[in-house]
Amino acid sequence: MKKIKVGMLGYSFMGRAHSNAYNQMPKFFYPPPAEPVKEIVCGRTKENVNSFAKQFGWNQVETDWKKMIDSDKIDLFDNSGPNNMHLEPNIAAAEEGINIFCEKPLARNLEEAEKMATAVRKNDVKAMCAFNYRRVPAIQLAKKLIDEGYIGDIYHWRAVYLQDWITDPDFPLVWRLRQDVAGSGPHGDLNAHIVDLSQYLLGGIKEVIGMEKTFIKERPLPSGAGVGLGDHTASEERKMGKVTVDDAVLFLAKFNNGALGSFEATRFATGRRNYNCFEINGSKGSIVWNLERMNELEFYSSEDPAFAQGFRTINVTEGIHPYVNKWWPSGHIIGWEHTFTHEVYDFFNAIAKDLEIHPNFDDAVKVQRVLEHVKDSIKSNSWKSC
Amino acid sequence: MKKIKVGMLGYSFMGRAHSNAYNQMPKFFYPPPAEPVKEIVCGRTKENVNSFAKQFGWNQVETDWKKMIDSDKIDLFDNSGPNNMHLEPNIAAAEEGINIFCEKPLARNLEEAEKMATAVRKNDVKAMCAFNYRRVPAIQLAKKLIDEGYIGDIYHWRAVYLQDWITDPDFPLVWRLRQDVAGSGPHGDLNAHIVDLSQYLLGGIKEVIGMEKTFIKERPLPSGAGVGLGDHTASEERKMGKVTVDDAVLFLAKFNNGALGSFEATRFATGRRNYNCFEINGSKGSIVWNLERMNELEFYSSEDPAFAQGFRTINVTEGIHPYVNKWWPSGHIIGWEHTFTHEVYDFFNAIAKDLEIHPNFDDAVKVQRVLEHVKDSIKSNSWKSC
Amino acid sequence: MKKIKVGMLGYSFMGRAHSNAYNQMPKFFYPPPAEPVKEIVCGRTKENVNSFAKQFGWNQVETDWKKMIDSDKIDLFDNSGPNNMHLEPNIAAAEEGINIFCEKPLARNLEEAEKMATAVRKNDVKAMCAFNYRRVPAIQLAKKLIDEGYIGDIYHWRAVYLQDWITDPDFPLVWRLRQDVAGSGPHGDLNAHIVDLSQYLLGGIKEVIGMEKTFIKERPLPSGAGVGLGDHTASEERKMGKVTVDDAVLFLAKFNNGALGSFEATRFATGRRNYNCFEINGSKGSIVWNLERMNELEFYSSEDPAFAQGFRTINVTEGIHPYVNKWWPSGHIIGWEHTFTHEVYDFFNAIAKDLEIHPNFDDAVKVQRVLEHVKDSIKSNSWKSC
Amino acid sequence: MKKIKVGMLGYSFMGRAHSNAYNQMPKFFYPPPAEPVKEIVCGRTKENVNSFAKQFGWNQVETDWKKMIDSDKIDLFDNSGPNNMHLEPNIAAAEEGINIFCEKPLARNLEEAEKMATAVRKNDVKAMCAFNYRRVPAIQLAKKLIDEGYIGDIYHWRAVYLQDWITDPDFPLVWRLRQDVAGSGPHGDLNAHIVDLSQYLLGGIKEVIGMEKTFIKERPLPSGAGVGLGDHTASEERKMGKVTVDDAVLFLAKFNNGALGSFEATRFATGRRNYNCFEINGSKGSIVWNLERMNELEFYSSEDPAFAQGFRTINVTEGIHPYVNKWWPSGHIIGWEHTFTHEVYDFFNAIAKDLEIHPNFDDAVKVQRVLEHVKDSIKSNSWKSC
Repeated sequence: MKKIKVGMLGYSFMGRAHSNAYNQMPKFFYPPPAEPVKEIVCGRTKENVNSFAKQFGWNQVETDWKKMIDSDKIDLFDNSGPNNMHLEPNIAAAEEGINIFCEKPLARNLEEAEKMATAVRKNDVKAMCAFNYRRVPAIQLAKKLIDEGYIGDIYHWRAVYLQDWITDPDFPLVWRLRQDVAGSGPHGDLNAHIVDLSQYLLGGIKEVIGMEKTFIKERPLPSGAGVGLGDHTASEERKMGKVTVDDAVLFLAKFNNGALGSFEATRFATGRRNYNCFEINGSKGSIVWNLERMNELEFYSSEDPAFAQGFRTINVTEGIHPYVNKWWPSGHIIGWEHTFTHEVYDFFNAIAKDLEIHPNFDDAVKVQRVLEHVKDSIKSNSWKSC
Repeated sequence: MKKIKVGMLGYSFMGRAHSNAYNQMPKFFYPPPAEPVKEIVCGRTKENVNSFAKQFGWNQVETDWKKMIDSDKIDLFDNSGPNNMHLEPNIAAAEEGINIFCEKPLARNLEEAEKMATAVRKNDVKAMCAFNYRRVPAIQLAKKLIDEGYIGDIYHWRAVYLQDWITDPDFPLVWRLRQDVAGSGPHGDLNAHIVDLSQYLLGGIKEVIGMEKTFIKERPLPSGAGVGLGDHTASEERKMGKVTVDDAVLFLAKFNNGALGSFEATRFATGRRNYNCFEINGSKGSIVWNLERMNELEFYSSEDPAFAQGFRTINVTEGIHPYVNKWWPSGHIIGWEHTFTHEVYDFFNAIAKDLEIHPNFDDAVKVQRVLEHVKDSIKSNSWKSC
Repeated sequence: MKKIKVGMLGYSFMGRAHSNAYNQMPKFFYPPPAEPVKEIVCGRTKENVNSFAKQFGWNQVETDWKKMIDSDKIDLFDNSGPNNMHLEPNIAAAEEGINIFCEKPLARNLEEAEKMATAVRKNDVKAMCAFNYRRVPAIQLAKKLIDEGYIGDIYHWRAVYLQDWITDPDFPLVWRLRQDVAGSGPHGDLNAHIVDLSQYLLGGIKEVIGMEKTFIKERPLPSGAGVGLGDHTASEERKMGKVTVDDAVLFLAKFNNGALGSFEATRFATGRRNYNCFEINGSKGSIVWNLERMNELEFYSSEDPAFAQGFRTINVTEGIHPYVNKWWPSGHIIGWEHTFTHEVYDFFNAIAKDLEIHPNFDDAVKVQRVLEHVKDSIKSNSWKSC
Repeated sequence: MKKIKVGMLGYSFMGRAHSNAYNQMPKFFYPPPAEPVKEIVCGRTKENVNSFAKQFGWNQVETDWKKMIDSDKIDLFDNSGPNNMHLEPNIAAAEEGINIFCEKPLARNLEEAEKMATAVRKNDVKAMCAFNYRRVPAIQLAKKLIDEGYIGDIYHWRAVYLQDWITDPDFPLVWRLRQDVAGSGPHGDLNAHIVDLSQYLLGGIKEVIGMEKTFIKERPLPSGAGVGLGDHTASEERKMGKVTVDDAVLFLAKFNNGALGSFEATRFATGRRNYNCFEINGSKGSIVWNLERMNELEFYSSEDPAFAQGFRTINVTEGIHPYVNKWWPSGHIIGWEHTFTHEVYDFFNAIAKDLEIHPNFDDAVKVQRVLEHVKDSIKSNSWKSC
């Protein structure tokens, strides 16, 4: 069987999720289209990378991503690093002819994203951007319902991605709150997801206008390196630093297909842990999905008998649903991380059979363009065409 | 237009609900099949009855129900009194040829219920027992779904009626907690409702076995007459009295149609205010209903496309649904008390046009028989045939 | 007891709702602060008004509102007419020193609204605008939670008012779809409600930007007068007419208190019957409410133990909750129309005791100003300060 | 690090789930208390076992369980075989001094279960019965709420385990529908789970009475070996065979602590895929849990302010909740199979540190006793003491 040797940059939250996907894919999607070999994991701190490699089963460790990419040892570059570590390594990989699996958002800004997409096209490598929610079975079902006409012409898209993990003013200034590393706050982190979903399900956006706010403008510096969602400890001296990203960004959008859209991303929605939720209304039906209940899809059909219409909650856990029969018999929910296994399966399949993959870097550029135009609209206080 | 002069016994919780129904019916079900005249209201305490008559618009007051029934002034006897005031007045009314609208449960025991039903049949009057939940629009829709084959052969009935208003041990010994007045606790009060619904929707029960418990065996005597749900004050001296009814009764049942059933009534389900909820599973579909969201019905159809099956929540608030278009345009929920207006409308229509009405006293006897057999099964520790 | 003689303009949807409130208030809020006398009802078509007066119990009928207002027979002018019948009659009533209870939206535009508010102030009459959802018990509870600090500093308001009654292109061009009568579509009809709720709960709005769309631009003319939500029949010849109002309006808002807000009103949200829903996120808690389950309030408190935090569904049906104990014992839901009874009770109380009432015409002007500024922002494609 | 060499019998549904747990535990619960070595997997059909071993990474294969147990190569016997393969192999393992991890139900009947428990005690091995739902984080939270007094004295337990995978009469006669292999139908398969949960959360049961039904008495024989939930194909000739297990079993129970309980297991609840749901009501609070939303727990506390009480939905996905921080940052749901990883972690920890483990075979015997007494109560038509 074809083997694909992976070199991964980053070993934090996403590094764990990707490692798990490489472990699980060949077991549950058996026989796999190609076998992942977890060849090299790369990170700045040798000791930590060593420990991680041992934990998740990587063959080698590296602290210099350039060496990893130049090593001739890898077929696939997995970029699970923070947003400021996407541009250079991705381009280097592309130039080495190495396929790329990169975490979202693709870039800190549109310019970076376009550079990467260009490099990918020029060097003719396959590059996937890990907008993992496309591969939730319920989202695939939503796509099917739309494509097969169950929803009709689409009038409305409304999506929110609500979290609440930084409402405490003592939560420290981790990298996700620093523009130089993250590029933006929930805008790039969360709106990126729902913009990608909207493009997957409804198509492109024509015009946007937004607003943003940073509710808490200064925070204590973190005690350690401040890498990762989990590093929540403020340093003892409590030196303060400036929050340089948004805490919330909302925007209105007009879609190319005529639908009206609204988007909201915030980390200040007290009580909402990971509430990525959208509703679509069309001439024949509607769809609602919510990540916190990601194994369900709500569907309304105006073709049901008039006296018996209503939103139905589909348990998207049946063998008939996408990906599901690879896991367990009908009726058993999957977890959040399974979406990465689905991505790895589809990407490995695309590589093995030389198929197109989506979302690729061009798709990701489109997301980045919308995000950037929202930012522009905020600066200029006016609508911005995409 | 034909007028129907009503004489009502009782002016507490149910007296209010019935008075309101007489007020509302001719306005919203306009023109009414016959016009209710609130002629006489009867209660023990003159002053209170006077006040009530003024509040809700009754023409006359009376403190002796016999005089009211013998007065030749009324066409319909409304028995909204407590359970120990059903037997004699109802029989007297029947013997006077007066139609009867009686609150549920019909009686404190089967013997009483049968006596009343016999009197009604012998004297050929119309008699309705006010199991009001039959006339929730969502319940009518459930009936339609079953009757028209959307559910198929029925396998399962499971119903609970859960309340929590006496979990506090200091809640006083009101009449509903005394066997001499109420006959039983939640068994007669709440199981009566769900047994009636089961008979309406599934038909008769063949065999039962139950269990019961009184969790709090003594309570402070109430300060006042202790009539009504609302009289929650323990007397100051806090003399204690014995609770002589059940606090919870559960039972299993085998239906004539082969379905398996379970029933539970309790006043000790902390957090459940008025949770009258049932689920029906059949070979082609399922139904769930819950009084706390009485304007909704959950419906599952196995005839939906395999990839899009799920329980749908029907807002039973559309003009197409039973009774609804009499009230407001589609999309506006009705309240709990509207069920009584529906009862009064249907009963007045039956009287005006000489139609059969259900649930009548024979239906109520069937409920009482099930309740009694459950009690017997508890005493004998064994299944009891109905 | 003081009597207040009412003269009402309009006998359609709102006329019914108001008549019912006058009937119910003195019975359930007994003794009433003042007794409503349903003195005169006024409408264009004599025959229809006569029938309505008989149905709901009005003493007299009138077809000329000027005569009604000049008659010296009324103490309160109830304006339940369509939006184009607000300006002149309301000003006339104010100038006669008659108190006013007017349906929402107060006006077709800001200029009209300000004229009415000025007339009211000048003539020192009491004038209430019937934003009835303020008087849902759950909304009053939400207000209490905010005022007493359970929510903390408010970061987010997001509200939608979704309906779907005109998604069928054959639905006729009723008055609500004509700008000359209605002023606007769901913007004035639905956004008005959620703007009022936001002002009640969060306070004023500083800046807005919106977008709008008319999805279906032509519709068949209605067969009849086309008055009322219920008149759904297209004329047989199917002559077409132009829809001159919006079908959907969305906007972003910045509140004076620093919160970010979003609003959406549409009649094209297939499957959403009357889905008036908002969420508020604050530093200490969150609130969600939805008209379709108007007897419930969702509340999240970050002061619950860390391991046991979550949105709780409060059944706002307990005696301890506002208005509830006037109706039924705890645990029994009220219907949509009860909100009008609450309004009439509070307004009659304010009149009888000479108290301030809210929402008054000044409150309604503030709503109208926001609506108008949204319209302006759409025209100018830019943010508009309020 | 200590290694524990596992020999597993069975490679179907449960074999997959257990293999996955051995794979995942040492990665996510890192460093593991002891390292699982997937040494031998054993099944009847060489070819299938070989394929399975390759897929999930087992070192060796075996077709004779006796050889595996006698091989001196394993430290832990994992019994993932069907119910008729528990007795002999488990006893053999115990007699070899090998620890045992056995799927539920422990046995086809009480006698078998007791024999196994005796063998385990006599040979002093550790033996865990895989009632995996105890190790759902939400269930652990429920246990904590009860143990720490948040629920108070418990009045009620009501549990159902509803499925619908055999409502189609053409679904073939798989092993789970044959008494000789399975022992019973949903009674042993599903009631076993909810009885175990009730014992974990409330303690022992004193008395039971039940009823059962086989709705479809004959079914087509399966085409193949008919092993596994997934083998849904009837043979072409459609020879029919007799269903020799129950399709549904309901029972009432009295707990030692005075609580009243009800239990129901069925495979005929159309629309319910895997609806394992219970509610507990106590003097101070209530709990509701449902496997289909296994990452949530509903909790009601009567100690909340009177005006703000309600069932709250806890997302049991926070770092503070049991097991959760081993997986992902807060807010990411886990899947059904993670419960097995939790079991393996706890059992390996118990073995490594010589701690007690629960549920052990004695706990499983108690479950089996309740199930058997329910069966007896059905035969004798009377209550049965436990």
